[in-house]
Amino acid sequence: MMSGMQADAKAIHNRLRRIEGQVRGLQRMVDEDAYCIDILTQVAAVQTALEQVAVNVLDAHVRGCVAGAVAADGDEAGEKLDELMAAVRRFAKVR
Amino acid sequence: MMSGMQADAKAIHNRLRRIEGQVRGLQRMVDEDAYCIDILTQVAAVQTALEQVAVNVLDAHVRGCVAGAVAADGDEAGEKLDELMAAVRRFAKVR
Amino acid sequence: MMSGMQADAKAIHNRLRRIEGQVRGLQRMVDEDAYCIDILTQVAAVQTALEQVAVNVLDAHVRGCVAGAVAADGDEAGEKLDELMAAVRRFAKVR
Amino acid sequence: MMSGMQADAKAIHNRLRRIEGQVRGLQRMVDEDAYCIDILTQVAAVQTALEQVAVNVLDAHVRGCVAGAVAADGDEAGEKLDELMAAVRRFAKVR
Repeated sequence: MMSGMQADAKAIHNRLRRIEGQVRGLQRMVDEDAYCIDILTQVAAVQTALEQVAVNVLDAHVRGCVAGAVAADGDEAGEKLDELMAAVRRFAKVR
Repeated sequence: MMSGMQADAKAIHNRLRRIEGQVRGLQRMVDEDAYCIDILTQVAAVQTALEQVAVNVLDAHVRGCVAGAVAADGDEAGEKLDELMAAVRRFAKVR
Repeated sequence: MMSGMQADAKAIHNRLRRIEGQVRGLQRMVDEDAYCIDILTQVAAVQTALEQVAVNVLDAHVRGCVAGAVAADGDEAGEKLDELMAAVRRFAKVR
Repeated sequence: MMSGMQADAKAIHNRLRRIEGQVRGLQRMVDEDAYCIDILTQVAAVQTALEQVAVNVLDAHVRGCVAGAVAADGDEAGEKLDELMAAVRRFAKVR
């Protein structure tokens, strides 16, 4: 990750640790025959947390890497924008 | 829309006309008591078409407006990036 | 659509007419070079309206057609449940 | 979870263990300053895996719990269908 992201890396790492704990909690729910709807609610919570991670990474990427390449106006700029749009498309699950 | 988009405007307009026709087709399906699953399939087709429009508009915006503001490195750059991320977030339905 | 849906058909038709008007509004925005972010906001509004239509149709289908087949416990029940899950999967854009 | 799900519980548990491993892999990527786009790709993979878990749980729920309540035609049937539609709505991120 580019340096602009350094500052956020710790926060993102901590979010991911929390998500890891939530996934372990889900395993316990399945093992203990929890009610399906409660499991689905918890899966949705993990998905929301993961989206937040994705938005944070994307945000750091756009402000650091992409903006840097565009400002430098080098050959890389077009490539970075293509890459960015591909990531956004995947993120939004556009077919 | 910024000039970079001019070229795409005609194509986007045409996509939207096709979508308008699909929505009218959906009204007919509902009026004629079509099978629910067939209606849902058609709704999904319209949603895919609309996403394609959104991706095209976003793409033109990123390459035109955002890249322009970043390259000019004026006060606008940060604002454009905030606006872009808000649009991406909304597009990906991130809460 | 099964009879359970009849009651909702008028409401769904009206929602679709409103959506048709929104799509025409989008064409005008594109023709008049509206700001990209405003177009994206309007596309998102149409998508939300379409999702509401899908939820209404799915709801009528589950309560009418699917519940009917399950209650009758005929050969159709399993098939209807398969079809329902396929529709839900498509609706949630699960790959 | 109702008994119909028992059979799937082991498979779902295993999927969740794999997801836990993927989330730990993401932490390492962040710690090692991996390229943002690679991180986003990996986040998308975890999201797809989680959706698959949600679909499996929903599927078991519809075929077991919901179909059971509808077949028994007790007071519970309507309540189960409401609950199901709420879960589908949340799953599809419909506002």
